[in-house]
Amino acid sequence: MPEPPYYAVIFTSRRTEGDNGYAERAAEMSKLAAEQDGYLGEQSARDDGLGITVSYWRDEEAIVGWRRNLEHTESRRRGRADWYEEFEVQVARVERSYGFTR
Amino acid sequence: MPEPPYYAVIFTSRRTEGDNGYAERAAEMSKLAAEQDGYLGEQSARDDGLGITVSYWRDEEAIVGWRRNLEHTESRRRGRADWYEEFEVQVARVERSYGFTR
Repeated sequence: MPEPPYYAVIFTSRRTEGDNGYAERAAEMSKLAAEQDGYLGEQSARDDGLGITVSYWRDEEAIVGWRRNLEHTESRRRGRADWYEEFEVQVARVERSYGFTR
Repeated sequence: MPEPPYYAVIFTSRRTEGDNGYAERAAEMSKLAAEQDGYLGEQSARDDGLGITVSYWRDEEAIVGWRRNLEHTESRRRGRADWYEEFEVQVARVERSYGFTR
């Protein structure tokens, strides 16, 4: 990851029952996102039904570019139609970061 | 959650082996954080070893206040000593949000 500032898109969700084609499409979207200009990385975890995915982007222009991608647009439509009971998207500007490695 | 802007602290981590007193202390810290001035909420998920916790705060002052809490300071010391192989903290200003409920 570069030094801040950069952007994070925090996506929290609860899924519907069943797969309904989600897993395959989600893998395709992760791969496609990684090819976008300005993509910096992604981290994902899910347990007890709550999923959190944080994707990182160089700037807001990169986020808008990914949002306009046609396959992503179709996937977002499928998300509302089939895959999610609820979700929330938060777009945030990362201002500082620090880490620890043992 | 209020309308943006507000702040998110994105904490990603990989744990060490064993509990080592982590679970009890983590529950205490979540309860204590919720009592802090400016605390807005928290979401957490972990799978395959990667944990993501996002806590939400009214402003940077609230984040600094929590960071200075003595019990939290001691827990952060224990985190480096005992509980985490690695972690990263990213402090971000949430600029917009939207959601969907079925």
